[in-house]
Amino acid sequence: MAERRARTRWIAGVDIGGTNLRVGLVPFAGGRPVAVSSAPTCAARGPAAVVEEVVSMLRMVIAEVGRANVAGVGIGAPGPLDRSRGVVLETPNLGWHDVPLVDMIASPIGLPVILDNDANCFAFGEWWLGAGRGAERLIGVTLGTGIGGGIILGGAPYRGASDAAGEVGHMSVDYSGRRCACGSRGCVEAYASGSAITARAAEGIARGADSALAAAVGDPAGITAEMVCKAAAAGDGFATLMIDETARLIGVAISNLIHLLNPDVVVIGGGVAGAGELLFAPLRDEVKHRAFRSAARACRIVQAERPATAGLVGAAGVFKLTVHGNV
Amino acid sequence: MAERRARTRWIAGVDIGGTNLRVGLVPFAGGRPVAVSSAPTCAARGPAAVVEEVVSMLRMVIAEVGRANVAGVGIGAPGPLDRSRGVVLETPNLGWHDVPLVDMIASPIGLPVILDNDANCFAFGEWWLGAGRGAERLIGVTLGTGIGGGIILGGAPYRGASDAAGEVGHMSVDYSGRRCACGSRGCVEAYASGSAITARAAEGIARGADSALAAAVGDPAGITAEMVCKAAAAGDGFATLMIDETARLIGVAISNLIHLLNPDVVVIGGGVAGAGELLFAPLRDEVKHRAFRSAARACRIVQAERPATAGLVGAAGVFKLTVHGNV
Repeated sequence: MAERRARTRWIAGVDIGGTNLRVGLVPFAGGRPVAVSSAPTCAARGPAAVVEEVVSMLRMVIAEVGRANVAGVGIGAPGPLDRSRGVVLETPNLGWHDVPLVDMIASPIGLPVILDNDANCFAFGEWWLGAGRGAERLIGVTLGTGIGGGIILGGAPYRGASDAAGEVGHMSVDYSGRRCACGSRGCVEAYASGSAITARAAEGIARGADSALAAAVGDPAGITAEMVCKAAAAGDGFATLMIDETARLIGVAISNLIHLLNPDVVVIGGGVAGAGELLFAPLRDEVKHRAFRSAARACRIVQAERPATAGLVGAAGVFKLTVHGNV
Repeated sequence: MAERRARTRWIAGVDIGGTNLRVGLVPFAGGRPVAVSSAPTCAARGPAAVVEEVVSMLRMVIAEVGRANVAGVGIGAPGPLDRSRGVVLETPNLGWHDVPLVDMIASPIGLPVILDNDANCFAFGEWWLGAGRGAERLIGVTLGTGIGGGIILGGAPYRGASDAAGEVGHMSVDYSGRRCACGSRGCVEAYASGSAITARAAEGIARGADSALAAAVGDPAGITAEMVCKAAAAGDGFATLMIDETARLIGVAISNLIHLLNPDVVVIGGGVAGAGELLFAPLRDEVKHRAFRSAARACRIVQAERPATAGLVGAAGVFKLTVHGNV
């Protein structure tokens, strides 16, 4: 194994999430990532400390194969970003402003580094080596604290005119509905993100919904989306209704994506996707009732194949695409 | 002029609309269409009679330049279509089923014929020779009896996995809202198409709205979208409110398009777009309040430059793209 690793050429992939940092090595030719490590992000300690942690994790994985065998580093980070300057402009989840991430990592590591949006990396990872391998048109949707999206067309991320495409979470499906943090109303993120599920569950409990969730916590504001998923899996009626409603709203958004882009595959990842069939069954049912039949038939809606590593795999893939022209 | 026409190579473009047929000649090299003629569609007479009319219009324009100078015929028709077989599968507006349009025209005309979706042709026409000339990413939206859409990426129509992309009108912006003819709920078409405006105005009048529209017609069901636009332009309060609401809902849909595709330009055509600033001012205001700033700034939202001929120009353009690889 050690010998194979030394003979292979690698790309280091980094996924900077709001909760976890993940680093690993992806074969330049494509294939399962190795030497994957993760650590809590602990964003509160500030960007310098987080970057120091990433650099130390990178040094460890690069040492495993020898620096000469690593072509470079691909990083996925929440945006908005200035990709050409390698700067994270603004990340509400991490509290970062104008962090020159590429320079801060390239300089101690001494390898070329590229930066891309985390949702693009997730989608590209699932396209390159995951559930949507090689699809001509793929949309990746991440159901996490927020809802992200990445569009892969013809083997490359579709970025749009100002690098702002793929904002699936801010499609409004209820124009006069719930206020979203972005300032608009009825964004699917305002209903179906992890934090929105938490808020909606807390509202239901506060209105007196009969649920194990009420007993599970002293303070209803302490309910997490994960707890709602678990309670639903355990048969809690209120939690099941919450997940069903969430799934149907995500289904409306995905029907809109299908109407507009008629993709071959929609890959869904992120923590909330862990609810599995509890989420996917009503979601697919909603799509069946809304999308046009030929377009719905042409589109697989699947769970991510690499929920934990698609981000770092995709970041490595975008590195290869950038320096090599294709993967 | 006659001499120039004989020296130029041409493509005949055909736009089969629910209301009008339009035929014209577009220079193969691009440029203003000439010899444009139009006739009422009179769909009730059936497909054979409509096609006979198109063939006779084509014969007239082709005779103007000589058949040897015409490379072929591009046709835009409402869908869904089977483009490869050249068949109109189903058009609710025309009442056609499985009409082999390409064969029915190619055989009497004796020139190569290609067929594409009318909304794609509109978008491609505005991209080739209209308001969105050469834009890397363009979305065309037609506000007519229904709401259609076409997406142009990298100089070609984006068609999706089963030729069903661009269905802007069926994006749901109100998931539990008005029932749409497609079976879903809250589609923007269910609020903002010509027929939806008519229906909403009739509902308002029936509820006793104070409007000149009530006096203008004995039967409120006889109100047309054009009448609503005209009454709004004349300062009628109820009609102005109707157009404002319509514009805001279209603005929600366009904000969704901007979030998802971050286009350089959105070109809006069709009868309802004729309302001009009455429609465009609140529409742009809504986008300003919903879309992300960088993406909204990157995107021009403009009225079609060739509202009457974009369809036939685009059909000719798609013909050229198909036989020549580019325009």
